[in-house]
Amino acid sequence: MARAGIGDRVEGFHAVAAAQAAGRVQTLTIERLRLRHDAYAALVAAAETQGTSVSVVEDVRPLAATDAPQGVVATCTPIAVRTLDDVIHLATPTALLLVDHVNDPRNLGAIARSALAAGVPALAVPRRRSAPLGATAFKAAAGAFEQVAVAQVGSVADAVRELRQAGVWTVGLDAAAERSLFGLDLLAEPVAVVLGAEGQGLSRLVAERVDQLARIPMRGPAESLNVSVAAGLAVFELARVRRLVE
Amino acid sequence: MARAGIGDRVEGFHAVAAAQAAGRVQTLTIERLRLRHDAYAALVAAAETQGTSVSVVEDVRPLAATDAPQGVVATCTPIAVRTLDDVIHLATPTALLLVDHVNDPRNLGAIARSALAAGVPALAVPRRRSAPLGATAFKAAAGAFEQVAVAQVGSVADAVRELRQAGVWTVGLDAAAERSLFGLDLLAEPVAVVLGAEGQGLSRLVAERVDQLARIPMRGPAESLNVSVAAGLAVFELARVRRLVE
Repeated sequence: MARAGIGDRVEGFHAVAAAQAAGRVQTLTIERLRLRHDAYAALVAAAETQGTSVSVVEDVRPLAATDAPQGVVATCTPIAVRTLDDVIHLATPTALLLVDHVNDPRNLGAIARSALAAGVPALAVPRRRSAPLGATAFKAAAGAFEQVAVAQVGSVADAVRELRQAGVWTVGLDAAAERSLFGLDLLAEPVAVVLGAEGQGLSRLVAERVDQLARIPMRGPAESLNVSVAAGLAVFELARVRRLVE
Repeated sequence: MARAGIGDRVEGFHAVAAAQAAGRVQTLTIERLRLRHDAYAALVAAAETQGTSVSVVEDVRPLAATDAPQGVVATCTPIAVRTLDDVIHLATPTALLLVDHVNDPRNLGAIARSALAAGVPALAVPRRRSAPLGATAFKAAAGAFEQVAVAQVGSVADAVRELRQAGVWTVGLDAAAERSLFGLDLLAEPVAVVLGAEGQGLSRLVAERVDQLARIPMRGPAESLNVSVAAGLAVFELARVRRLVE
């Protein structure tokens, strides 16, 4: 079976510039008036150096899949989607974010951006019941998908079991957990942090199967966070515990 | 001059439930099939107790301003927008998030949610050049605007000066700053954290005027975060330094 690819269509300045830096851009379509700006002119100059086909148009919006393509869209060689096994060894010790059923592609993009900033090299998402990794996710990621690997898994519950067999601990974020994620020693070990769906949290099976449940500590019992904010706090906590950032 | 109000129209389950708990709902419109769910039936029961007008319809989407109103929309008594002076003393020592020119109302909503979760009681936004605090922002806030006060300021640069006169320190987030925000002692003092626009960061005037510039430490020089993730890290850092959460 052919392996799926993502990022064949990229829109927005930062996302296109990153795809170009990765050598993936096949065709670049850019608005004429944007060429007055050095940053956009540099995209065209680099495209010419790389031998990429460039079209200059008055308005890219009719060609765009996102609401605000910022005057530039590109078709690209896709990025291969990885298996869980592929991404386990991208960091030593393993650092991985396993994200269950996020519906909003902007959230997935923001999560990839946070992972890159915090030094977490891979995300894993379920093959079904996850937002599409299309132009909207790539734009929100502002280029992060060029560097953060994406693995697809059959189910998050199966992935948790597979991680255990590979010697990777799993920490599930759960608002009702006793342990705080802040300062959690397990984050220094080979570890995957597991986030549940927007609104609903972890599925019961996943919550039972992870090695440790932990909460992001909050001021009140009824409070909650946007899933990309929760993911951002999680990856930066991993980075702090490992002293990757300070 | 009449003071502006926000939140006169609220959509989505959590946002409507929070507005109802705050006693603000005037009319509630709900989809018939949702009433099978206890949570929605409880909204109607509470509306009847409060003497709120309830309409049951087949589909609320034609009446909704948001994409996914989750079967419920409400008209509400607005929440008064506050002045900077009003919100300086909501926490002791002062804790405030001053957010410049965020364009996406979903980001403002997510920021309010993070502020509430971290115990930061107020946001200040510029009167102009900020996303509208309408149904989309309220839905993303999942009820947080019922508890986090919103102040409008003429300009962020003026607000920084006004805060100084009131004895409140200002910390501006800037990716190029030498100091890390993590562990910054100033967060324990009366303080406002200032965030710049999505993409562009702080304006030069604001960057010059704040007492301290600080960066969220990242793994690479080119990396950046979604503004609501950056705000989430900032308010939780304030909460950690003050030991409000742990």
